[in-house]
Amino acid sequence: MTAISDNQLATRADDETARELAAPNETEIAQLDAWWRAANYLTIGQIYLQGNPLLREPLTPAHIKPRLLGHWGTSPGLALIYAHVSRLIRHTGQQAIYLAGPGHGGPALVAAGYLEGAYTEIYPKISQDEAGMLRLFRQFSSPGGIPSHVSVTTPGSIHEGGELGYVLVHAFGAVMDNPDLLAIAVVGDGEAETGPLEGSWKGVSFLNPARDGAVLPILHLNDAKISGPTVLGRKDPAEVRALLHGHGYDVIEVEGSDLPGMHYRFAAVLAEAWGKIRAIQTAAREGDWDGSRPRWPLIILRSPKGWTGPDEVDGITVTGTWRSHQVPLSGVRDNPEHLAILERWLRSYRPEELFDDAGAPTAGVLALPPRGDLRMGASPHANGGLLTRDLEIPDFRDYAVDVERPGASRAESTRKLGELMRDVYTRNPDNFRLFCPDETNSNRLGAVFEVSDRAFMERVSPGDVAIGRDGRVMEVLSEHSCHGWLEGYNLTGRHGMFATYEAFAMVSASQTVQHGKWLQEARNLPWRAEVPSLNVLLTSTAWRNDHNGFSHQGPGLIQVVLTQRGDIARVYLPPDANCLLSVADHCFRSRSYVNLIVIDKQPQLQYLTMDEAIEHCTRGAGVWEWAGTDDGTSDPDIVLACAGDVVTMETVAAAQILKERLPGFKVRVVNVVDLMTLPRPKDHPHGMSETQFTELFTDTVDVVFSFHGYPGAIHQLVHGRPDADRFRVRGFIEKGTTTTPFDMTVRNQASRYHLVMDAINNAKRLPRGATVLKQWCEQQLAKHDAYIVEHLEDMPEVRDWSLGDRAQRG
Amino acid sequence: MTAISDNQLATRADDETARELAAPNETEIAQLDAWWRAANYLTIGQIYLQGNPLLREPLTPAHIKPRLLGHWGTSPGLALIYAHVSRLIRHTGQQAIYLAGPGHGGPALVAAGYLEGAYTEIYPKISQDEAGMLRLFRQFSSPGGIPSHVSVTTPGSIHEGGELGYVLVHAFGAVMDNPDLLAIAVVGDGEAETGPLEGSWKGVSFLNPARDGAVLPILHLNDAKISGPTVLGRKDPAEVRALLHGHGYDVIEVEGSDLPGMHYRFAAVLAEAWGKIRAIQTAAREGDWDGSRPRWPLIILRSPKGWTGPDEVDGITVTGTWRSHQVPLSGVRDNPEHLAILERWLRSYRPEELFDDAGAPTAGVLALPPRGDLRMGASPHANGGLLTRDLEIPDFRDYAVDVERPGASRAESTRKLGELMRDVYTRNPDNFRLFCPDETNSNRLGAVFEVSDRAFMERVSPGDVAIGRDGRVMEVLSEHSCHGWLEGYNLTGRHGMFATYEAFAMVSASQTVQHGKWLQEARNLPWRAEVPSLNVLLTSTAWRNDHNGFSHQGPGLIQVVLTQRGDIARVYLPPDANCLLSVADHCFRSRSYVNLIVIDKQPQLQYLTMDEAIEHCTRGAGVWEWAGTDDGTSDPDIVLACAGDVVTMETVAAAQILKERLPGFKVRVVNVVDLMTLPRPKDHPHGMSETQFTELFTDTVDVVFSFHGYPGAIHQLVHGRPDADRFRVRGFIEKGTTTTPFDMTVRNQASRYHLVMDAINNAKRLPRGATVLKQWCEQQLAKHDAYIVEHLEDMPEVRDWSLGDRAQRG
Repeated sequence: MTAISDNQLATRADDETARELAAPNETEIAQLDAWWRAANYLTIGQIYLQGNPLLREPLTPAHIKPRLLGHWGTSPGLALIYAHVSRLIRHTGQQAIYLAGPGHGGPALVAAGYLEGAYTEIYPKISQDEAGMLRLFRQFSSPGGIPSHVSVTTPGSIHEGGELGYVLVHAFGAVMDNPDLLAIAVVGDGEAETGPLEGSWKGVSFLNPARDGAVLPILHLNDAKISGPTVLGRKDPAEVRALLHGHGYDVIEVEGSDLPGMHYRFAAVLAEAWGKIRAIQTAAREGDWDGSRPRWPLIILRSPKGWTGPDEVDGITVTGTWRSHQVPLSGVRDNPEHLAILERWLRSYRPEELFDDAGAPTAGVLALPPRGDLRMGASPHANGGLLTRDLEIPDFRDYAVDVERPGASRAESTRKLGELMRDVYTRNPDNFRLFCPDETNSNRLGAVFEVSDRAFMERVSPGDVAIGRDGRVMEVLSEHSCHGWLEGYNLTGRHGMFATYEAFAMVSASQTVQHGKWLQEARNLPWRAEVPSLNVLLTSTAWRNDHNGFSHQGPGLIQVVLTQRGDIARVYLPPDANCLLSVADHCFRSRSYVNLIVIDKQPQLQYLTMDEAIEHCTRGAGVWEWAGTDDGTSDPDIVLACAGDVVTMETVAAAQILKERLPGFKVRVVNVVDLMTLPRPKDHPHGMSETQFTELFTDTVDVVFSFHGYPGAIHQLVHGRPDADRFRVRGFIEKGTTTTPFDMTVRNQASRYHLVMDAINNAKRLPRGATVLKQWCEQQLAKHDAYIVEHLEDMPEVRDWSLGDRAQRG
Repeated sequence: MTAISDNQLATRADDETARELAAPNETEIAQLDAWWRAANYLTIGQIYLQGNPLLREPLTPAHIKPRLLGHWGTSPGLALIYAHVSRLIRHTGQQAIYLAGPGHGGPALVAAGYLEGAYTEIYPKISQDEAGMLRLFRQFSSPGGIPSHVSVTTPGSIHEGGELGYVLVHAFGAVMDNPDLLAIAVVGDGEAETGPLEGSWKGVSFLNPARDGAVLPILHLNDAKISGPTVLGRKDPAEVRALLHGHGYDVIEVEGSDLPGMHYRFAAVLAEAWGKIRAIQTAAREGDWDGSRPRWPLIILRSPKGWTGPDEVDGITVTGTWRSHQVPLSGVRDNPEHLAILERWLRSYRPEELFDDAGAPTAGVLALPPRGDLRMGASPHANGGLLTRDLEIPDFRDYAVDVERPGASRAESTRKLGELMRDVYTRNPDNFRLFCPDETNSNRLGAVFEVSDRAFMERVSPGDVAIGRDGRVMEVLSEHSCHGWLEGYNLTGRHGMFATYEAFAMVSASQTVQHGKWLQEARNLPWRAEVPSLNVLLTSTAWRNDHNGFSHQGPGLIQVVLTQRGDIARVYLPPDANCLLSVADHCFRSRSYVNLIVIDKQPQLQYLTMDEAIEHCTRGAGVWEWAGTDDGTSDPDIVLACAGDVVTMETVAAAQILKERLPGFKVRVVNVVDLMTLPRPKDHPHGMSETQFTELFTDTVDVVFSFHGYPGAIHQLVHGRPDADRFRVRGFIEKGTTTTPFDMTVRNQASRYHLVMDAINNAKRLPRGATVLKQWCEQQLAKHDAYIVEHLEDMPEVRDWSLGDRAQRG
């Protein structure tokens, strides 16, 4: 059997290849075993050694690290899989990436990248010689080095081994519109207990074999997690089979610890799985397919935890139990017996056969991995910025809402974004997807269905609308899956958007945080090319969830994104459609950010022409002269600031009331689109200069700030600005809803009437007529409260309010 | 077949009862059908009507609400199940609660409570007559009324129908240690797509039939969600069966829409399921059990979406499709044809048979439900505060760490908490549980295993430690399951704690938020008795995750809890073991709060004796005279404040450096345990008075505040305090970790050396020797940076630092 030369796709019939793959000869077995032993040796070295990396002298306590960290238990299994997939790639030219769900087996993946040479290419100091190996060992889980798990620093990874649950969603996202890619996704039996992971097996119900690549899940059952057994590890194997068959997989099982038997058997099941994948893809791509969901293969690998490690320590069984999860031998510096076990254990891999005199891997080890970009540690798919193409975006100005006068007419802003995305879909048939938990239509983004169905591989009924196997709009009722798929899609270089209900964005908040950490860390690594930004659109916002009530009102994700660093975090609150289009265009063109856009889906007042919107959004914040009574010649009596669509309307309405009822009272209206203009420049790169800040907010005049989210967000953002205490923030406040559950009552926290009273109360100068106006506001509130209970909707002067022809542009 | 009288448990043989239940006679069918028709009628009335509730006159546009809200699609199915379970209860005396996963079918559950009389008992204005019915209709999804989904206001509910995914975890939590309770948990096929729900089927792997009650999941497949099909709805039914069989269930299926056929068939499958549950429980409780996991029954109900609604509207099929998900008939006020369809639809239930002249339910309808507390809308299990017993807590002072001098010795603080919880377990054998994702030992709480194993119903091996069917420590590698189980346990009146890694607390942050909303809303409802608080312990904190790196460092949950209202949110940062014990005791005794406790698990310096700790924690914040050089006679030169264990150590160390190296420089050290003492009293009930605030922080002296979490949290908390801008916060800052990934580097953000320099830079008076000291600090930082790279651990003077005998109590 001849290896296919580097980067050349298989030309022989796949089934013949699979047959050959299934039956490795003795030379191949020797190569697999040598490579595997080398990887295991390097794994243990990373955990334990700070000297004597090749065991050229007897091991002494001084060679042992002061603090033993890392996870041995899962590592040999991860390395075994890596070895066999490497052989598969070398023989087939298959493009593949490797996602390690049990990411705490980081040293195994680092070892693999090192043995491939990929690690040294990126980090030249970690050279393939004795000095480099020692650096490899010392950097692991050490100050100035690398974390103990698979991380951004690990070549070939798009999957951090920290928070568990996302290995399959990342894998499925990576292969969407990536027909030639195979994602090997190892699922640990610990991770398999998490909700997000259990919810992600159904990725196959959304994967089109003609257009998308393939995911090969390998469920690696070794029975235990940190300190106890796992559910899948201890269930009747027939139940585990039934479960995965029920998810839609063709379950292939392999089990054992005998050698070289396991090499033969694993080679056979991997070949079987690959052959089945190729058969499914060939049939789908050559037209021999009825369109039904294929039954994709899945491998269950049962192997001992800590396999090839010390069987017993201090008379207690370690290998095969939870005791080998982390560091099976502790106190090695002080315990001569443990030190001796460690040395025997290390020597059991026969390092002298694996590394030459200089410390470089021997030819027998190097014979296994593929070359060049086919190495999983060097795959451009796992450094997706290298493959990123600019999105083809039509001119967003073509979707502008016509705004004759500010605040005079209503439109559904997100509908315009839907139209823009429809045309983005058309121009980017394999480079853009929208991900949304079943709410694309509800969020008024349904224009995309004019050009793409929703992806769905289960049974489609004649009555279905916009559902089908060729669809590329991704709807699944799981924020975790939507978010994770998009991350996988982004990290392999493609563009997209996650649109979801604001209140339930907290479901996947931890993913937003973790992806932000990934992007931020990647900025420190010159070899990681920038990838498309993670774009998150929140609709159905707190202020419009009157009917759904309290549990559907939660602007918490803003707060979460604010904790991320300025390098990557962006929060936009466009007040109308033209601003939304301008912001969205910017976000689609950006790289390696987390862009959070918050805007409601209901019909809402429109303020700015497209030209004005572009200027406003470019600045991020600005004075709306037409809304206020501020002539700019001196400080106003009050600044009414706002960020967020509904509160902007209330602010404009309040300013209008003041204009009409308190002539001579000088009101300045400031709207903020880009929330990150508020902090100081040293706290965020978007932070406006002190001069700009003063131009908008003055240095001393009180600011009544109406904010879409929790008031504390503004308090923390303006910290350090001149006299920050003068910012009076009205925002969303959690309150019980039983007696007053609804929209207008919540909105009243920042209603026009409250804002007018706030303006009066905080103005340095009490204008004539102020007391009467405050009384009128109280009366309006009381009147409105009574009206909504009687009529079950807002009173007309609130419901249908607009500026009409009262506002003129300057 | 005779109904068992109220609240009397079944005495006849269960199998005979099950046989009778399986075969309702015609009278019973008529009762079931009448009740079901009444519930459906009331559901539609809630969605559509604001007048003419009994259709005593022809329907006109004026009778229709201005805004049509609510979800019809799932409601008839929910009501059918409710009807049949009511019959089951009436015949068996079974204690049961009903959890509606498709909680948007709120009107169906409200209708059920109304027909039982439970609703009127709680809300007398919603009387069982025409006027009350009209109020019932008008309040639904209206200002001043109730939300559109099952909510805190719904009698009989412990499960909000907002964020999807938690119906099974709530159900399993409710039945733990509740042997007589049956939780009917309806899972919608939309919710079934979420990760948390998919992860929660495995609750049966942790349920002990001898000690716990039973969950009967009813997977209600009606094929569609808001605007498209569902995966389980469209999968081959054999796959769905395999999936649920794989999870460990005995799958019973029923399908159809024919009437009364479906009544007969549903009665039969419900009887079968109940009989199997009773058989499992009887065997387990009477000793006829081998200890293996039972195969619990589960029902799959396939019925049309919007069942009994209008088949077609405008020539398009509605019933049985996603079009009936919400409001199947729109524009009813303006469209006479739709109005006519609505009237026909309402009259199809023959309301004149269901309600008498006064508008009260007729005897035929009232014959179905059980009486008294057995009504699901009146079950005390769903108003768990009624059943809450105080936790028996040993005197926490007995677990005190002996602290001879402050800052002189180290202890693992959480280990003490583990010992306290061990004895709580012993004293409360059915009233307390610890929930933890596989980290009880890692978090140093393992003392609980001296008295309780981990619960586990799958295969147990001889080598397992502290694993078994009788265990009551709940470990599953799912934050969602742990959190949700505890919520269910709490809401049914029992106590517990969720202990988890700080960084991954964000996984279940949305659950923390939603449960907080529940508790807050419940405070507005006098009939809802207070329940035990949700106690969340975060360990393995950001500051000690050097080796795990960036992805394991995230103090975000503090930020999330801060957004909750003062009524329910509490955040504690005990600096040592004695404070932790005092705080934990307080939290265990509290009711209806979300208590967040943050402390690391590593050995850490101890400062306060138990008496001091109690005083300090009672105040929530205080001056540590022994740490500073402030004699209290005048303002100090600087205030060093701290909240959080690691940053407290750094602050004490910085104060010591200043004491020794800048004699005459007056430093005050303030430690904050209860974060909510910082805001103003009007913002949080724990907020200290302005006088107290000034006593601690002065009015004008700069405060260098070392905070465990993100700095913005302190900025927002001190907003409005005198000259809040003088607070300089050092806290956790997100930063890439590649070049400097580790603990000390992160900790350096608030390291003693940085704090000393901050103190000097911000003091109003520059003391002699300050410049030299700053240089020394820079040198120390450089020296430490070099040391950790060389030696892979902190330099000894940092690693082993303590106050030794230098500090004396005042």
